[in-house]
Amino acid sequence: MDDAYFMGQALQEARHAFDIGEVPVGAVIVLHNRIIARAHNLTETLNDVTAHAEMQAFTSAANTLGGKYLIDCTLYVTLEPCMMCAGAAFWTQISRIVFGADDPKRGFSSLQKQILHPKTEITGEVRANESKELLRSFFSKKR
Amino acid sequence: MDDAYFMGQALQEARHAFDIGEVPVGAVIVLHNRIIARAHNLTETLNDVTAHAEMQAFTSAANTLGGKYLIDCTLYVTLEPCMMCAGAAFWTQISRIVFGADDPKRGFSSLQKQILHPKTEITGEVRANESKELLRSFFSKKR
Repeated sequence: MDDAYFMGQALQEARHAFDIGEVPVGAVIVLHNRIIARAHNLTETLNDVTAHAEMQAFTSAANTLGGKYLIDCTLYVTLEPCMMCAGAAFWTQISRIVFGADDPKRGFSSLQKQILHPKTEITGEVRANESKELLRSFFSKKR
Repeated sequence: MDDAYFMGQALQEARHAFDIGEVPVGAVIVLHNRIIARAHNLTETLNDVTAHAEMQAFTSAANTLGGKYLIDCTLYVTLEPCMMCAGAAFWTQISRIVFGADDPKRGFSSLQKQILHPKTEITGEVRANESKELLRSFFSKKR
């Protein structure tokens, strides 16, 4: 099981979001090759702008582990994390982040300063086209 | 009722956090001179790094209002918001943020780029000394 496999799992979550009319972003958190949390964007359903896929995955993974810090964990997320989610990732001290599509507008990597925890390694553009296509298709339906 | 009064309410929340061994940060959200949400940091209690005072206040205010956006609302928070909370504030489109103590290490204003929503006005250093003193006293007990 590699990055493309786990990104496929995150894409599956994104498709669930799509199906219920949520902006289609999905995430899974993996520890030692096992998925310990999965989530998709629920901002509309929960009426809560903080309910991004990553935020829920962090909370859920911490619940599963019984500890706040996501040491040795990898976050797979279909869209580059925004500043809120990157800021949350900092606090979790997560070991690695793999994202799909980039987000030039609100993605954290547009910032000058080191946002992520120094312990966090980042890999971008994994199955980016599938993620982008899902988002494009969602917004083309809406507009 | 002015900024100092509402910051006093946020400080009261911070003191609740202090009393239960949480990093003492408190927040209230005000709409038309009425407090619609109050919260304090609960990262230890909830075992969740995303449970900052501001995050909970945003969620709670959106619940009260029945809408995701905090238009015309003011967030009073005893410590300068971190990047996660500033990123969340962006998504809420909150109209104003008033903070107490600055946070040169993880505060959002250390970033080069515009983090907050362009509609959000910011006021810092309101009753900053009281907030700082509470934090200083908390960490001096711990270390």
